[in-house]
Amino acid sequence: METAGELAPSARVLLGPGPSSVPSRVLKAMATPLVGHLDPEFVRLMEETKALLRFVFQTKNTLTLPISGTGSAGMEACFVNLIEPGDEVIVGVNGVFGTRMVDIVERCGATPIKIETEWGRVFTPEQVQAALGQSKRPKLVALVHAETSTGAWQPLEEMAKIVHAAGALLVVDAVTSLGGCPVKVDEWGIDACYSGTQKCLSCPPGLSPVTFGQRALEVLRQRKTKVQSWYLDMTMIEKYWGEERVYHHTAPISMNYALREALRLVQEEGLEARFRRHERNHVALAAGLAAMGLPLAAQEGHRLWTLNSVTIPAGVDDAAVRRRLLEEFNIEIGAGLGPLRGRIWRIGLMGDSSSRGNVLLVLSALEEILRTQGHACAPGAGVAAAQVAYAGG
Amino acid sequence: METAGELAPSARVLLGPGPSSVPSRVLKAMATPLVGHLDPEFVRLMEETKALLRFVFQTKNTLTLPISGTGSAGMEACFVNLIEPGDEVIVGVNGVFGTRMVDIVERCGATPIKIETEWGRVFTPEQVQAALGQSKRPKLVALVHAETSTGAWQPLEEMAKIVHAAGALLVVDAVTSLGGCPVKVDEWGIDACYSGTQKCLSCPPGLSPVTFGQRALEVLRQRKTKVQSWYLDMTMIEKYWGEERVYHHTAPISMNYALREALRLVQEEGLEARFRRHERNHVALAAGLAAMGLPLAAQEGHRLWTLNSVTIPAGVDDAAVRRRLLEEFNIEIGAGLGPLRGRIWRIGLMGDSSSRGNVLLVLSALEEILRTQGHACAPGAGVAAAQVAYAGG
Repeated sequence: METAGELAPSARVLLGPGPSSVPSRVLKAMATPLVGHLDPEFVRLMEETKALLRFVFQTKNTLTLPISGTGSAGMEACFVNLIEPGDEVIVGVNGVFGTRMVDIVERCGATPIKIETEWGRVFTPEQVQAALGQSKRPKLVALVHAETSTGAWQPLEEMAKIVHAAGALLVVDAVTSLGGCPVKVDEWGIDACYSGTQKCLSCPPGLSPVTFGQRALEVLRQRKTKVQSWYLDMTMIEKYWGEERVYHHTAPISMNYALREALRLVQEEGLEARFRRHERNHVALAAGLAAMGLPLAAQEGHRLWTLNSVTIPAGVDDAAVRRRLLEEFNIEIGAGLGPLRGRIWRIGLMGDSSSRGNVLLVLSALEEILRTQGHACAPGAGVAAAQVAYAGG
Repeated sequence: METAGELAPSARVLLGPGPSSVPSRVLKAMATPLVGHLDPEFVRLMEETKALLRFVFQTKNTLTLPISGTGSAGMEACFVNLIEPGDEVIVGVNGVFGTRMVDIVERCGATPIKIETEWGRVFTPEQVQAALGQSKRPKLVALVHAETSTGAWQPLEEMAKIVHAAGALLVVDAVTSLGGCPVKVDEWGIDACYSGTQKCLSCPPGLSPVTFGQRALEVLRQRKTKVQSWYLDMTMIEKYWGEERVYHHTAPISMNYALREALRLVQEEGLEARFRRHERNHVALAAGLAAMGLPLAAQEGHRLWTLNSVTIPAGVDDAAVRRRLLEEFNIEIGAGLGPLRGRIWRIGLMGDSSSRGNVLLVLSALEEILRTQGHACAPGAGVAAAQVAYAGG
């Protein structure tokens, strides 16, 4: 066997769809020697983490905790706990993650009813209403708040009323929004919501914060069948994270150290200040890209601050540009997924990665590389436009 | 909301059922700034990790990788991928983890056939043979190599021949054995095996190494139904960890950094030397405990080196002893689970925690505390007996 050498990765500037850059305080927390998963000190840390997660989810939900897996495990946890075989589930499909939801719904033995729109566009309350009309007994409606594959930002304010009137639950994917733009679980009437740690919370990937409200809990309590996943069964997980402290699985201690520290940083910055930072950097990036002839791809008026999908100009070699960004500038940006592969780039400005310095850097680097690919724009045009935007112009 | 302060856990000596103590090199690796999950540098690290895992599993299996969840996620991954609704599955139940397997088998819509014996005892090939005779078409036989809840060490050498003759697969739980005592996947004919990182590999909890052999792969390829878990679907996970590098979920980068470093340490020590160390410390601990009137609880001749279950003497307050070990000596040991609660302690000597110093420390601390609980033994008897054992006496 070849010998694996000392770990020495390059110092990347992480501007892809996640992971985002992790602050040194979070890395340091993660390197703290471990206590056991039933240690009174860890139990106290669990309580602090739950409180901090309620803060970022803007909720009072008791059942708010990190699932011991990445964001997709949180997605699966919401579905396997809330639906049973034979249920009808309405899913908004306008990107990769809606598609993934449909796949999971089917694996639960439930029937998905898809609401579809072009990738990059969002759904209207009327479309959700119409889909609810097609279902006799809709169990839940699932929508992606921030579509990481397209950069589309789904408005949710009007949705819960419609969904609840039909007797269904509203389940929301907030993987790329939590901590970067408002996710108002209680105010918006969201019944279950999941996220990831490696996006706007700037913690390494490995945990999935979830929150379940009262309506969702009632559905969970009234199940006729066991949750099909043992590992993700919230009725057992809540006994470990609740007052009973019944052992379920060994919690990922170090990842929980990291998450708690990342959440402390969110609290110190303040949610509003953090949202403004994400907004400001997005606006400047968008201005710079526009000046360089690189329009954003998502529906106008519904573009995420956290994930910018950029239309690749004709004649430009997608893979070559990303490779040069990585090799010459240590910058990671994301490729398009599925039907958008080769058509868009995805520039993430999430958590710690959302900084003025990174915006100016990626615009400069892109300009230099694109010039060699025959995509002309006035020298410095991108950076200049971003600077104007920062100055409030 | 109360403010969560700076992370400052006590410096525990981790002698429970896991997590074990994590070496500083592993902590340092975990605190290394992240690259993306599709970065060429991470792809190279994935290949190195797979090779290192093959080394500890003693296998040539291509499909050998860490699942992005704790050991229980690895358990669930083996079952959901290999069984389908209606299958008959034989499970050896002699502790918590066999019980958990039965629960998962039922959640898969399959029929478990239990082989049972007293907790702390192991199964004979004849018992497995008899169970196979009860099933018309047994899909697989699942056994726990190292029962963390009892300290029993299940011999496996004779099992595969019997299982394969019946047309079934052999699935093994090696959570508390991998890296601490031999797990010879290829030589023993194990078809699928899972472990955890936080035991004898001395890496934090959060990943579950798994390996699937050719027979298991054929079963996976011939499935009539989709794997019920999207997150744990090996047909998709293998495309990300294989040459295609198709995005499935965002790999827990930092945990993978940690695992690779932990495996490098195993490689540097050498498997045989590591096993001898685990054996030696177990023998010394057992000698010390015996001298203190504290017999091991698992079946004689089948006691794990890595997890020692100790019968709690009559009249001794289980919880008080464990609390004092933690508060006065910073030592964590484990309580009994289920029917063994209050009847045994579980002293783990796993990975970095398996050291001569820890053996002497826990014997001394236990002696001091037990004396105040009315359990008399000659002063220093435990330590003296351990020292004799270390001297080869």
